Amino acid sequence: MFPKPSDIQASLLNSALPAGYSLLGLRSGISSTPGKKDLALFYSHTLAQCAAVFTRNKVKAAPVLLSQKKIQKSSQTRSILINSGCANACTGKQGMQDALWSVDQLAAKLRIPPAQILAASTGLIGSFLPRDDVRKGIGGLAGLLKEGRNSAHNAASAIMTTDTREKAAHAVFSWEGQKYTVWGCAKGSGMIHPNMGTMLSVILTDIGLPADKIRPALQQAVNRTFNRISVDGDTSTNDTVFLLSNGAKASFSKAPSKLMSLFQEALSQVCFSLSYQIVSDGEGATRTACVTVKNAAHEKSAARMAGTVAGSALVKTALHGADPNWGRIMAALGRADSPFDPDKVDIQFGDTVVFRKGRKTDFNVSKVNDVLQQKNVFIVIDLHQGKAEAHYLTCDFSKDYVTINADYST
Amino acid sequence: MFPKPSDIQASLLNSALPAGYSLLGLRSGISSTPGKKDLALFYSHTLAQCAAVFTRNKVKAAPVLLSQKKIQKSSQTRSILINSGCANACTGKQGMQDALWSVDQLAAKLRIPPAQILAASTGLIGSFLPRDDVRKGIGGLAGLLKEGRNSAHNAASAIMTTDTREKAAHAVFSWEGQKYTVWGCAKGSGMIHPNMGTMLSVILTDIGLPADKIRPALQQAVNRTFNRISVDGDTSTNDTVFLLSNGAKASFSKAPSKLMSLFQEALSQVCFSLSYQIVSDGEGATRTACVTVKNAAHEKSAARMAGTVAGSALVKTALHGADPNWGRIMAALGRADSPFDPDKVDIQFGDTVVFRKGRKTDFNVSKVNDVLQQKNVFIVIDLHQGKAEAHYLTCDFSKDYVTINADYST
Repeated sequence: MFPKPSDIQASLLNSALPAGYSLLGLRSGISSTPGKKDLALFYSHTLAQCAAVFTRNKVKAAPVLLSQKKIQKSSQTRSILINSGCANACTGKQGMQDALWSVDQLAAKLRIPPAQILAASTGLIGSFLPRDDVRKGIGGLAGLLKEGRNSAHNAASAIMTTDTREKAAHAVFSWEGQKYTVWGCAKGSGMIHPNMGTMLSVILTDIGLPADKIRPALQQAVNRTFNRISVDGDTSTNDTVFLLSNGAKASFSKAPSKLMSLFQEALSQVCFSLSYQIVSDGEGATRTACVTVKNAAHEKSAARMAGTVAGSALVKTALHGADPNWGRIMAALGRADSPFDPDKVDIQFGDTVVFRKGRKTDFNVSKVNDVLQQKNVFIVIDLHQGKAEAHYLTCDFSKDYVTINADYST
Repeated sequence: MFPKPSDIQASLLNSALPAGYSLLGLRSGISSTPGKKDLALFYSHTLAQCAAVFTRNKVKAAPVLLSQKKIQKSSQTRSILINSGCANACTGKQGMQDALWSVDQLAAKLRIPPAQILAASTGLIGSFLPRDDVRKGIGGLAGLLKEGRNSAHNAASAIMTTDTREKAAHAVFSWEGQKYTVWGCAKGSGMIHPNMGTMLSVILTDIGLPADKIRPALQQAVNRTFNRISVDGDTSTNDTVFLLSNGAKASFSKAPSKLMSLFQEALSQVCFSLSYQIVSDGEGATRTACVTVKNAAHEKSAARMAGTVAGSALVKTALHGADPNWGRIMAALGRADSPFDPDKVDIQFGDTVVFRKGRKTDFNVSKVNDVLQQKNVFIVIDLHQGKAEAHYLTCDFSKDYVTINADYST
């Protein structure tokens, strides 16, 4: 289930990219980290259909409000401009003017209508976009585009904040003899929890599918992947996932359901891999766990219970200590506000059942310690209640998490 | 608002206790910590009226299920037996038999009906009560009671787990020329969040009030104090607050509302002080914060928003770093699922407004850093929306929290 590191590496190569896009990233000076790339452009050479999922946080950054409005008006777009180093959130009218101004600047340079440009920002809340740096950066991006440059690596790098590595994934599927690519990159790290923690993701595909088909496909993929990860339980003002479908290979105005399920599968794989990369690069994280709740009454309650376990600070510190602490898992399940019978629950770490029918088993502690010291840990909770199942990805809570977040200032 | 340390010290003296009770605590051997007192008896010399609030966690320890049933049958009780070192949770039929057996043992020794004894446990989930130790401990408690011993300190100490100090508080009020005392002790530390994190509290008063009056009084006090504290967002299988009213000074079968509001005030003060002591002794905590949301539309939404801010891992790490991170507060408010206008919000640390009408102010950073380095920090969020208000107590998230909880095993 967990993606292989070699797949992730390959996804950062330009050869993994779908046809008809140029990806660029450079340093403009917006970020206060010396040398850090901070402005990215995702450009489709033809008009693309677009779908997006935005943060449900009531405090929404200016670019979120702007992109939401644009997509409501039209699902057609050409490009996405993303900066790191400044969230442009809690910045009021000035912030909205800055976002509009940035889009206008790019539109003028690229000679396309501003309506065809979407925007996203990530970084510190409350600071204003430095227009001089943005202007310089946009000029640079337009120049690189004219030169025909393309760099998955630079774009993925320019959207990072406290991430320690670029995150990209791709999947390929065939339909009527033609191969299509779904590729995505993401940034994550702090404030990650369902409803889109501080995370941005751009997903690109070279198949052309109608907006009313890619919208539910993206929502479903996001619900089961990005919305089922937990780094620290906070959600942010800026989270956005964009999906562009440009039809550079071929377009289907009436996408048959068999094609849509191939696309859905590829899209979900990409989203899952990106989610995994976000969690495993969680601030201070040393290991990743997949919490599965199975044989639940409904998928919704399974997801709620898996999420409560995955988000528990006590479970996450136990994971850090490689401690098979089923007691904290039971306590978390009990407060998830979903009915279940504690006396029927089994809990498994890796292959070892440590808890069966509501009682501790005589498990081999040193064997389970070994399992918990792996980089990827599987925790399976069987409710013996129904047939529904949900997975949730989480990481451990380390001292470094505290250090990083006690020092990272507004 | 925060209680003075001198008040807290005085509450551990026997002179602070209400009339008609004996409090005892000793080491029986249940706890694996060498020398740690682990069994407490709260004994009323006459029949007392009892009210209780229990954990809402769906996984309930055997003594919780037992005490719930007893109180449903009759509100009259004589004594409460509490052990630390073993939660007697996730222990099935055997656990329930052990709890019943303990109560029977104590009833025989004290020559009172088992129906007049309540029980609570705290400590590791999943281990069974060691009957030999319990038997020995109960024998010891009965002996001390016969000798006329009384020790607030020993009882408060015997219910502790990872707490670093005893927690007790008292308040006095007068009615028709007579003074009455409300006294309570508590244990807290890990897994503290609304709906009663691993916390136990026993509150005793020497006024006699009917059960149908003390029940809503306790519920109201708990809702606004114990249910508005956050150490790490987890809630436990064992949490219980008991209130005994024995009438050792005088009893009132029809308590007039003026008397009830005096009693409510004293009870709430005691609960607030105990809540504060629990939070300020949170695992690894170095400082305590009171988060107030004021001018909200409803108290319920104010409490939900204050609780989301107080429970945010990012806010708690910022508090540890003495960082005036209003951005994380705004992000937390935004995901609290209560409507508000971000552009109207003011945020204040101590006396300094750092954020006004949705924008950062030009505040004096070094002055605010000083405020945030105090032991008690006040964070006030003004929504400018209505007239309701709620307070929430929290503590910072330190590296020691991670150390304590990565090592404390099931």
